[in-house]
Amino acid sequence: MTIDRARELDAADPLASYRDRFALPAETIYLDGNSLGCLPKDTPARIAEVVGEEWGRDLIGSWNTADWIVMPQRIGGKIAPLIGAAPHEVIACDSVSVNLFKLIAAALKMQPGRKTVLSEPGNFPTDLYMIEGLEKQGLATRRLAERDRIMEALDEDVALLLLTHTHYKTGAVFDMAELTRAAHDKGALVLWDLSHSVGAMPVDLNGCEADFAVGCGYKYLNGGPGAPAFAYVAERHHASLAQPLTGWMGHARPFEFLDDYAPAPGTDRLLCGTPPILALAALEVGVDLIAEIGVERLFTKSQALSEFFRECLSERGIALELVSPHDPDRRGSHLSFRHENAYALSQALIARGVVGDFRDPDILRLGFAPAYLRFEDMAEAARTLADILETGEWKRPEYSERSAVT
Amino acid sequence: MTIDRARELDAADPLASYRDRFALPAETIYLDGNSLGCLPKDTPARIAEVVGEEWGRDLIGSWNTADWIVMPQRIGGKIAPLIGAAPHEVIACDSVSVNLFKLIAAALKMQPGRKTVLSEPGNFPTDLYMIEGLEKQGLATRRLAERDRIMEALDEDVALLLLTHTHYKTGAVFDMAELTRAAHDKGALVLWDLSHSVGAMPVDLNGCEADFAVGCGYKYLNGGPGAPAFAYVAERHHASLAQPLTGWMGHARPFEFLDDYAPAPGTDRLLCGTPPILALAALEVGVDLIAEIGVERLFTKSQALSEFFRECLSERGIALELVSPHDPDRRGSHLSFRHENAYALSQALIARGVVGDFRDPDILRLGFAPAYLRFEDMAEAARTLADILETGEWKRPEYSERSAVT
Repeated sequence: MTIDRARELDAADPLASYRDRFALPAETIYLDGNSLGCLPKDTPARIAEVVGEEWGRDLIGSWNTADWIVMPQRIGGKIAPLIGAAPHEVIACDSVSVNLFKLIAAALKMQPGRKTVLSEPGNFPTDLYMIEGLEKQGLATRRLAERDRIMEALDEDVALLLLTHTHYKTGAVFDMAELTRAAHDKGALVLWDLSHSVGAMPVDLNGCEADFAVGCGYKYLNGGPGAPAFAYVAERHHASLAQPLTGWMGHARPFEFLDDYAPAPGTDRLLCGTPPILALAALEVGVDLIAEIGVERLFTKSQALSEFFRECLSERGIALELVSPHDPDRRGSHLSFRHENAYALSQALIARGVVGDFRDPDILRLGFAPAYLRFEDMAEAARTLADILETGEWKRPEYSERSAVT
Repeated sequence: MTIDRARELDAADPLASYRDRFALPAETIYLDGNSLGCLPKDTPARIAEVVGEEWGRDLIGSWNTADWIVMPQRIGGKIAPLIGAAPHEVIACDSVSVNLFKLIAAALKMQPGRKTVLSEPGNFPTDLYMIEGLEKQGLATRRLAERDRIMEALDEDVALLLLTHTHYKTGAVFDMAELTRAAHDKGALVLWDLSHSVGAMPVDLNGCEADFAVGCGYKYLNGGPGAPAFAYVAERHHASLAQPLTGWMGHARPFEFLDDYAPAPGTDRLLCGTPPILALAALEVGVDLIAEIGVERLFTKSQALSEFFRECLSERGIALELVSPHDPDRRGSHLSFRHENAYALSQALIARGVVGDFRDPDILRLGFAPAYLRFEDMAEAARTLADILETGEWKRPEYSERSAVT
């Protein structure tokens, strides 16, 4: 019996107790932690403290007394070990998109005579669009090459290779060490988007000699909707780092209120406006919890979860087309299946309490956030998906109506 | 008796009841609402709802069911009437600094053949630094002219005039209509930074035919520390608006995940990354409350408060140098005094529960956020300041030690 096997696996799971550290929705199997992570149980009290005491009671003084002013650095320092970086190489700030702009622009500055930014078609859109933003400023030239053609597209014109480590749609993971080496061999720098990797799997930026990285706070880091992002710059680039969003919080002496910009040391100069304290406070709780569990153990469990899910589907004789790599070492923490009615399928699943998501045009994406999911959830989700496919339940007309965010 | 007069004024104050809508710190007279506004009493419950229910319980579905996806537009639309704009001309997003970059760049795009961005020395630093950021990209030339020389510095090279409506240090207010007209006469566009105006005084962007504006959410709008900012673009510029931070949320069809950027209509294209929902929710409570009170009434009261404060000082024979305009119609909602030991003075005041702030090198800045301050607070603050000056209490060594944020 699948369910018995699932319960055995749960009983032997060394991370089982962490499930209770999250406020999980009732009667739901949440397979969308790769889009918006669940709420850590410690977050509401921490937010209430920041709102009621630090803001409400101590007001402006909290920049000093509650150390608000160092939150971007402190949280960046806590993210650092999750991605193979040193604490001073990471800072929490702005959005992934804004941080991409800063770092693409900074990389181009370091590469006089080169303007090409190489990426792949089908990369997460904002990565591609931020290159376009610099292209429309006349500062970059966007070049896209399919992932199996990236090596040959890397030439002496390429200033920067910008790739998403774990693909948002397929879950396929690039070989960070190999691609970084290949780019460096051609004199190109590399910027890794870790949005679908951070908190779900070990990443070794410094071991791979990466140059730059960005990542998302609201997926596997469980920082809340629209949480601040982070940016990484290898220490060897700190002295020459120059980015165009030169806001006052990135100034060497912001409280001298000088007319001329002078960059703060290292990654501090990536700060721009006033840090968003409530959002940073929520992010910090999520980061602390993921750091406590540990990304190696999380990845091991996520691999076991997704493989077990596939077994459960197999046992039911369900042969959905898996667009994710079949080898769990070559994918992140989600599985994507192709189905011509993927949208209706995702809606029928949601109606039965199994929340995954849909990615245009034909992808059903199921995320296996290992910090709070059980093997029992896998068995149950696979059973539900099999039922929906076998009964044709997904064909009900209400499951085809599209909403604003899909 | 000053205190009796204060109580009479409070008894007659039509806004007196709004004080109870804020969670004010005990035994403190908070004269720093111009830096970080106080906590509305409705905010903690709203944040708890967003965290616990919208995020924790409903998770990813809240983008639709809780209308997260339209928060930037909805909140922008609520800010609009406070600044003389139409709802679709304003959007809440990112920081003031990031929005400055977007709009300076957009203005330069609209002005082929012109690169000069004119501002004044001593403007709030981030305004000047963001011009520098574009200057270092080779896209702008920064020109600074003292405020009484701006008219003559406006020439046919000027693409954009960027000014802060209410000066962060002196509180002096520019004549928006006159300067906008003068800039337009020379073919320049105008971007107003409303950070120290919005929520404290009426602003009439459309009446003045302004082109662009930005403003801060955490001062008089009481949106919380590091709250999202907003951006305004006059409708006549919507069709030609192009800004370089072309993130996925500013795309016409973000959920089609296309490789090529296509701008969303109007100010929606100012969106960049995923909106910060917790921070936006806090901002919305503050905006709702200020909109309910009304900016005309708020400005009338803030003028009465600051004039009464000056009277109270006069009665005590205190003659501090006022660097703010003496005419309350020519200043915003704060008063700045010059004193060679302004830092120690501000610290001595804080030690006595009167919280103002210090601005380098010699300014004691006292803000009169009219939504929650009483005339009695004015009398008490003036009495405390007079005491500290008369007794020399500010000379204690501990009041000279500088902290990280001043």
